[in-house]
Amino acid sequence: MGAGEKVMPEAVAPKPSEVSRPAVRPTTVYGASLHRLPRHGDMRGDLVVAEAEREIPFSIQRQFLVFNVPSPQVRGEHAHRTCHQFLIAVNGSLSVVVDDGTKRAEIRLNDRETGLHLAPLTWAVQYRYSSDAVLLVLASHAYDADDYIRDYDEFIDLVRGRS
Amino acid sequence: MGAGEKVMPEAVAPKPSEVSRPAVRPTTVYGASLHRLPRHGDMRGDLVVAEAEREIPFSIQRQFLVFNVPSPQVRGEHAHRTCHQFLIAVNGSLSVVVDDGTKRAEIRLNDRETGLHLAPLTWAVQYRYSSDAVLLVLASHAYDADDYIRDYDEFIDLVRGRS
Repeated sequence: MGAGEKVMPEAVAPKPSEVSRPAVRPTTVYGASLHRLPRHGDMRGDLVVAEAEREIPFSIQRQFLVFNVPSPQVRGEHAHRTCHQFLIAVNGSLSVVVDDGTKRAEIRLNDRETGLHLAPLTWAVQYRYSSDAVLLVLASHAYDADDYIRDYDEFIDLVRGRS
Repeated sequence: MGAGEKVMPEAVAPKPSEVSRPAVRPTTVYGASLHRLPRHGDMRGDLVVAEAEREIPFSIQRQFLVFNVPSPQVRGEHAHRTCHQFLIAVNGSLSVVVDDGTKRAEIRLNDRETGLHLAPLTWAVQYRYSSDAVLLVLASHAYDADDYIRDYDEFIDLVRGRS
C-alpha cells in the first residue's frame, strides 16, 4: 500500500453482529436491563472488561460469588431498597426471574459478556444453576440487612407507592 | 434440650483451620499479599463476599475476566505505576509469578476464597491456566495505557529508585 492511501482497517469497521447488538437492552421488566460487555480476544485468550459508572451503571462497593448451588435450589427471592446489582454468569449458566410488581420475565445468563442490571425495587429470584455455574454479583452498596425486602407483599406495596 | 441451657452451637466455635489462617498473609515479595475472603455456605450453595476498602484494599473502578487462555500462554508481564489489582481464580486454576525487583515468588490460585493483591510497582506474570480457568481482576483505576510498565529493565530502574 502506498503512502498517503487511507484505508480503514478491517478491525475498525463494526461487524454486522455488533451493529445489531446494542450495548444496553431493556427487558420488559422495569429496572432490569441487559448490558453487553466489551470482549477482547486474541491467541492468548479472551478478556471481558467492565468499568464502574460506565458499563456498570454505578460505583462498586461490594462483590460476591455464588456457586455450588444445587440445581433444584432457588436463591435471591428479594428486592433491594437502594442497592443496585449487576449479575454476570462467570462460569456455567443460571436463570433469573425478574419482577417489577407488574411484569415478570425470565432471563438465562450463560455467557461472560452479558451483565444483568437490577435497579432498586426489582424483585429477583435465581434458579436452574448448572452444576458448574459461578455467579458474580457486583453491588453498589456494602451489606446492609435493612436494605433487603424479603416479603413479596411488602415489595408490591412499595412499588405501587412508586407509581 | 431444656430451656435455659446454654450450649455453644458447633457452628460458632472457630474451626482449627480458621484460627490458623489469618485474613491477610504477606508473601516474600513486597507488594504482593494473599487475602482470605469470607465464605458463607449452606444447603443452597456457597457465597464468597468481598467489599471495597475492606477485604479488597482499594475502591474498585474496573473489573475484567480472563479466560480461554491456552495453557502454554503467558499473560500479564507488566507492572502498574499507580493501579492496584486484586486477582481471584473464580473457576479453575492458574499461577502468578510476582516480582518486586529483588525477590520473586510463584503463587497458585485455585480457590474462590483467596484474593491476590498486587500493589503498584509489582511485576506480575500469569501462566499455567487450567483449561477451565476464569480469572477475575478487580482494579483500582480505569484503563490507562500510560499506567503500564511493560519493560522489565524500566521496572527495575523504578523500583530501585523507590528504595
